[in-house]
Amino acid sequence: MRYLITFSYDGSKYSGYQKQPKMKTVQGELEKALKTLNDNTKVVLNASGRTDAGVHALNQKAHFDLQIKITPEKLQKALNSMIPDTIYIKKAEIVDDSFHARFDVVAKEYVYKINLGEYNPIEKDYILQYNKPLDVVEMERALKYLEGTHNFRSFVKIDEEKESYERTLVSANLIRDVKHVNTLTLSFLGTGFMRYMVRNIVGTLIEIGEGKRKSEDMIPILKEENRMYAGKTALPNGLYLKDVFYR
Amino acid sequence: MRYLITFSYDGSKYSGYQKQPKMKTVQGELEKALKTLNDNTKVVLNASGRTDAGVHALNQKAHFDLQIKITPEKLQKALNSMIPDTIYIKKAEIVDDSFHARFDVVAKEYVYKINLGEYNPIEKDYILQYNKPLDVVEMERALKYLEGTHNFRSFVKIDEEKESYERTLVSANLIRDVKHVNTLTLSFLGTGFMRYMVRNIVGTLIEIGEGKRKSEDMIPILKEENRMYAGKTALPNGLYLKDVFYR
Repeated sequence: MRYLITFSYDGSKYSGYQKQPKMKTVQGELEKALKTLNDNTKVVLNASGRTDAGVHALNQKAHFDLQIKITPEKLQKALNSMIPDTIYIKKAEIVDDSFHARFDVVAKEYVYKINLGEYNPIEKDYILQYNKPLDVVEMERALKYLEGTHNFRSFVKIDEEKESYERTLVSANLIRDVKHVNTLTLSFLGTGFMRYMVRNIVGTLIEIGEGKRKSEDMIPILKEENRMYAGKTALPNGLYLKDVFYR
Repeated sequence: MRYLITFSYDGSKYSGYQKQPKMKTVQGELEKALKTLNDNTKVVLNASGRTDAGVHALNQKAHFDLQIKITPEKLQKALNSMIPDTIYIKKAEIVDDSFHARFDVVAKEYVYKINLGEYNPIEKDYILQYNKPLDVVEMERALKYLEGTHNFRSFVKIDEEKESYERTLVSANLIRDVKHVNTLTLSFLGTGFMRYMVRNIVGTLIEIGEGKRKSEDMIPILKEENRMYAGKTALPNGLYLKDVFYR
C-alpha cells in the first residue's frame, strides 16, 4: 500500500531533509520509525524535494510503500509517537500506486521571513535577523520582474546541473502585516524550484532593499543566466517550505 | 558607576535565569561577560526577579556596578559581542547609585501564549502546545475575578514562604488575534508576581476552558488561600516576562 504523508519540521534541529550517514536528518528519523512500523523492513521515503540544513517545512509531503496494513489515522498516530517532537505528521492518506511525491508536484510555495526590527534571540533560528530597515517598495517592484516563466540559471547553485533552468514563478509577493510591521514575508509560488533558488533570490532582493542594486537590475540578472550576476545566498533560517501541490 | 540593562532571552536554552553551579543560566552567562569587561573583577547582576527554566524574557531588567568607566552604548555593544546569541542586550543606561532593579519595581507584565490549533514542531519551545479548542469566553470571564488586590496564596508554589501573599493584578486579559485565531495570548499586568503564580493561574484557566471548572470558581479558589484549590502548573514554554516598570 502506498501512503502520502504531510509533515512539518523545525529545520534548525537537522542537517537538512535528506538522509546522510552519521547526521541527524528528517528523512533519517522518519525512515527509522517507518522501518520499525514495517516489521523491520526498510522503507524508502520519497519527498517532494529536499530542504537544506536550517530550512523549515510547514507542509512537506512524501510517499512510501508499506508491506503491513495500517489505516492512515493509525499510521499518523504511531509515527508521531515514534519520531522526535521537532517533526510532526499532520496527515496520512492512502494514494494510488502510481502516485509519486516528487514527480507529480505541480506547484510549491515557499515563504521567507525577515526581521527588520531589533535582534530577537527568541526567533533567531526562525526569522532572518536582518535588524535594519529595507526599501520594501523597491523590493516589491523587483519581485514583479521574477513572476512568469524565466530561465533562473542566475539564481541556482553554481554547480547545479539541470536539463533546463526554465521555471514558472506563478506569483512572488511581499507581505507586511500591519500588526508586525518589522516582519517582512516574501512568498514564492512556482512550478518548480532549484537548489538555493529562493535563498539566492532573497539575497538579491536584500541587496535591492539596501539600495546596492535597483529593482530593474532583475532584468539583466535573469538575462545573463550566470550565478555571478545575482546576489549572495540568504541564510536558511528564514526559509519555510509552505506547501506542495498535486493535481 | 551603576548600570541598568534591558535584555531578552530564549529561556528554552537555559536552566532558568538564576545562577546555579554547573548549569547554563542567563545570569551566569551575563556575569561571566561582565567580569571580563570589568578588569576581571566579579560583577553581581541584580535582576528584577528570576524566571524559571524554559521561561522567556522580552524585556528583563537588571542593574550592576562596574569599576571601569564605559559609555552605555559601548557597554551594550561589548556585552552583545561576548554573550551567546540566545541573549540580547536591548539597552544599557546609567542609573543613580540608589536604584535597585528588584526593590524599585512598581509593575511587571507577563504574557502566556497557547496554541489551540495543530501541534507545531517549529514553535514547541515558544508557545504552549495545547492543540485543542478551549472555551475562551469562560476563560476571559475567569480572568476578571483575578483583577484587583487579592491574596494569591492559592496560586503560589506550595512551599513558598512570603510575608504577604497580597498582590494587585492591575489587568488580566485574553487576546485573540483575528489573523491567528488559534493563538491565545493571556496578559497579566501586576504590582508583583510570586513563584509559579502566572503558570498556576494559567493552569487553572485551562481547566476552566476545558469545562472542568467554572469561571466563578475563581472566587473560592482565591478565598481558600491554599495551593490545593487551584489547578495544575502550566508548562514554562508559553510564558514571557514582557516588561518591568519603574517609577
